[in-house]
Amino acid sequence: MKIVILCGGSGTRLWPISRTLFPKQFCQLFGDKSLFQKTVERNLSFAESFSVVINQEQYFMGLDQLEELKIQRPSHFILEPIGRNTAPAIALAAMVAKPDELMLVVPSDHLIENQKAYDECISNAMDLAHRNYLVTFGIKPHYAETGFGYIEAQGTDVKSFKEKPNLATAESYLKSGNYFWNSGMFCFKAGVFLDELKKYAPDIFSQSQRALSSKSKESITRISLEDMNSIRSESIDYAVMEKSEIVKVVPADIGWSDLGSFDALYEALPKDHHGNTTTENVIHIGSKNNLVVGGKRLISTIDVEDMMIVDTTDAIVIAKKGSTQKVKDLVAEVKKKNFEMTNVHTTAYRPWGSSTILEEKSDYKVNQITLRPGSQLSLQFHHHRSEHWIVVSGIATVTIEDKTFTLNPNESTFIPKGAKHRLANAHGENLVIIEAQVGTNITEDDVVRI
Amino acid sequence: MKIVILCGGSGTRLWPISRTLFPKQFCQLFGDKSLFQKTVERNLSFAESFSVVINQEQYFMGLDQLEELKIQRPSHFILEPIGRNTAPAIALAAMVAKPDELMLVVPSDHLIENQKAYDECISNAMDLAHRNYLVTFGIKPHYAETGFGYIEAQGTDVKSFKEKPNLATAESYLKSGNYFWNSGMFCFKAGVFLDELKKYAPDIFSQSQRALSSKSKESITRISLEDMNSIRSESIDYAVMEKSEIVKVVPADIGWSDLGSFDALYEALPKDHHGNTTTENVIHIGSKNNLVVGGKRLISTIDVEDMMIVDTTDAIVIAKKGSTQKVKDLVAEVKKKNFEMTNVHTTAYRPWGSSTILEEKSDYKVNQITLRPGSQLSLQFHHHRSEHWIVVSGIATVTIEDKTFTLNPNESTFIPKGAKHRLANAHGENLVIIEAQVGTNITEDDVVRI
Repeated sequence: MKIVILCGGSGTRLWPISRTLFPKQFCQLFGDKSLFQKTVERNLSFAESFSVVINQEQYFMGLDQLEELKIQRPSHFILEPIGRNTAPAIALAAMVAKPDELMLVVPSDHLIENQKAYDECISNAMDLAHRNYLVTFGIKPHYAETGFGYIEAQGTDVKSFKEKPNLATAESYLKSGNYFWNSGMFCFKAGVFLDELKKYAPDIFSQSQRALSSKSKESITRISLEDMNSIRSESIDYAVMEKSEIVKVVPADIGWSDLGSFDALYEALPKDHHGNTTTENVIHIGSKNNLVVGGKRLISTIDVEDMMIVDTTDAIVIAKKGSTQKVKDLVAEVKKKNFEMTNVHTTAYRPWGSSTILEEKSDYKVNQITLRPGSQLSLQFHHHRSEHWIVVSGIATVTIEDKTFTLNPNESTFIPKGAKHRLANAHGENLVIIEAQVGTNITEDDVVRI
Repeated sequence: MKIVILCGGSGTRLWPISRTLFPKQFCQLFGDKSLFQKTVERNLSFAESFSVVINQEQYFMGLDQLEELKIQRPSHFILEPIGRNTAPAIALAAMVAKPDELMLVVPSDHLIENQKAYDECISNAMDLAHRNYLVTFGIKPHYAETGFGYIEAQGTDVKSFKEKPNLATAESYLKSGNYFWNSGMFCFKAGVFLDELKKYAPDIFSQSQRALSSKSKESITRISLEDMNSIRSESIDYAVMEKSEIVKVVPADIGWSDLGSFDALYEALPKDHHGNTTTENVIHIGSKNNLVVGGKRLISTIDVEDMMIVDTTDAIVIAKKGSTQKVKDLVAEVKKKNFEMTNVHTTAYRPWGSSTILEEKSDYKVNQITLRPGSQLSLQFHHHRSEHWIVVSGIATVTIEDKTFTLNPNESTFIPKGAKHRLANAHGENLVIIEAQVGTNITEDDVVRI
């Protein structure tokens, strides 16, 4: 079966942990693997291949995280320049697959705690998909959630799809036992899905086909912005599932959470006997039932209850539990004041490694740059600044104008204004340098790539 | 009159803003002047000279802050190696003064908002002091505080000194109108005080005299640790005021706060119409009545009420308002885990300027070092690390072994392991360098000063 992993997400609901360019599926919220990596591992036993539908800006992050797992399965990335909801994403993935191929479509940012129950559900879904059904997964609700759509089921038959209910309706759904949360996971043959898409959303079908036809089908499929823009934005539920007559549902009680808010994250994280999430570098004095997510800094609380405290290098959020849906309002406010902070962290992840701003003033900037083995920065020069590089770990291969030389730890070099230069790591361990940029323009604007 | 400024303080009650080596009198809590500087300015109109009793570790910080004010008065520093409470500190200051000289003794970390009322009180106190009384200042209480000692007064006569009362007693004091908070401010002739000290605490008198006699009386008086240790630790209240029969009190309604807790700081700081302190780089969504003190990072809150949020480079404290007396418990916990964090900030203030740690790993460390005009670091070398210096602002005078040369902005140099070196700023503007230390020992232990 082909596992299609959807990597959408705007990085707003768990801001400032998640950012537009670092959405929550790539964050290590549970131990040392990201939700994306956990999604890959959860499906390894069914997977013949992986197809990752991902924003083009996040391709390298996704590729890195996949490669870290060292899995022995073919993988394919479909790079979207912008998101157009799930129907186009899944259509593109289905069109790249063979028509008879089974596809399991899964979001990359959900938590599933009961692997055994999950395996059984997938097995049941595969049986139904083999028999040419479109299979959805209905999560058994444990409380009256008003933020999800519901599926009304009778056994594996779908009676109806329901919009997000009000609280009274949600409570009646919970009581009845026949209503399930729509999980955003699907299983079907690629060709069966495409036939139904053609029937119920022919525009999305043909637009997606056109977007794809202009591409050679390699290990990466890049969709152009123009092509992607031409596809109607729509969810698979509206486009197909709610209309198709061959839909089945597999009820699933699998320890599922969409981690769609800090409140949901609090529920899912391990907690100590005072109800505080167990986080390193925290001191609580008389505090109870708090979510604390932090980084390097010491976080300490005194007599704090039912709060969310989320600390990152450049921003901290303190919110009352139950109010965390307002994080989106906060992100809107932050955008007004400082757009970059909603997009990126102080540490930026790049194809070649990462870069962390240590200090930034109007006329100089100090960065810590990590280059992965075998990677290099583009050949470039700057009109308005010179740079100092000090190797602190690994071996640098430095090009300045027509000279190339190596620098060992504790060696440094100077790149004058206007000099073409390149930093590369030709060795087998990470290269870490401290870079001091000094000049009248230390922004990305003054990077001339050759 | 000689203004004697007492600069004690352990830096715990407003931790993490204040630290052991950066107590609250040196913090800019209100605008761009520190409480110490505000104390100097408040007393300028009465001051013929200043005498600052200060921990020797903080001498340069106090001197810098005094020099920043460019006041045209003689000043003298008495450097204590350890604090022995107020009686010895004031005794030492009185012994350095002329016997007939009026002294106004003031703590350096209090806030006084009503300068006009203050001036009147001082004027009244001077009259009484001229008539050979020991004058205390009794702050008119505005609520039933249980954390202060009280003075029972009848006019300017002292009826009795009272220990910290329980709440019922404090309420009866408040109601009666004859009880005042003991402010820790005093006014008297140096000789009159010393006579009373000799009478009621002869050991402190003679121990202080001996400690001082071994010093030449220059512009700085350094007391040795051995001498300071030999003086009994005692407050001026216990040692003299509660026993002397020539004590008067000046009732004072002067907008006074001892800023002894975050709760007191909240009361004293300006607030917006939602009751949140007005702080830069903060976004509140639906939050009310919060104290927020921050630095560089964005601090955002959602539906948070009656909390204290205090953010510094390396530590953040979130506390319920009213629970801030527990900050001392927190500091004790922090000490167990990381002693340095209770002592110093990421930025350390030194006689020559300041040093900020930008990044610290086991085998390298990046510092930003600022040297004031005319200052220099000690000639030194390291066994286990080499250093890279990059000048980003100002002009450095660098000595490496037997060579001395200058570095302009954007120039750098390398100091090999074992090489004697010195950094100096011989020019008229601040020198800022980025220093990368690389080696197997990057701690202060590996600094060999010559």
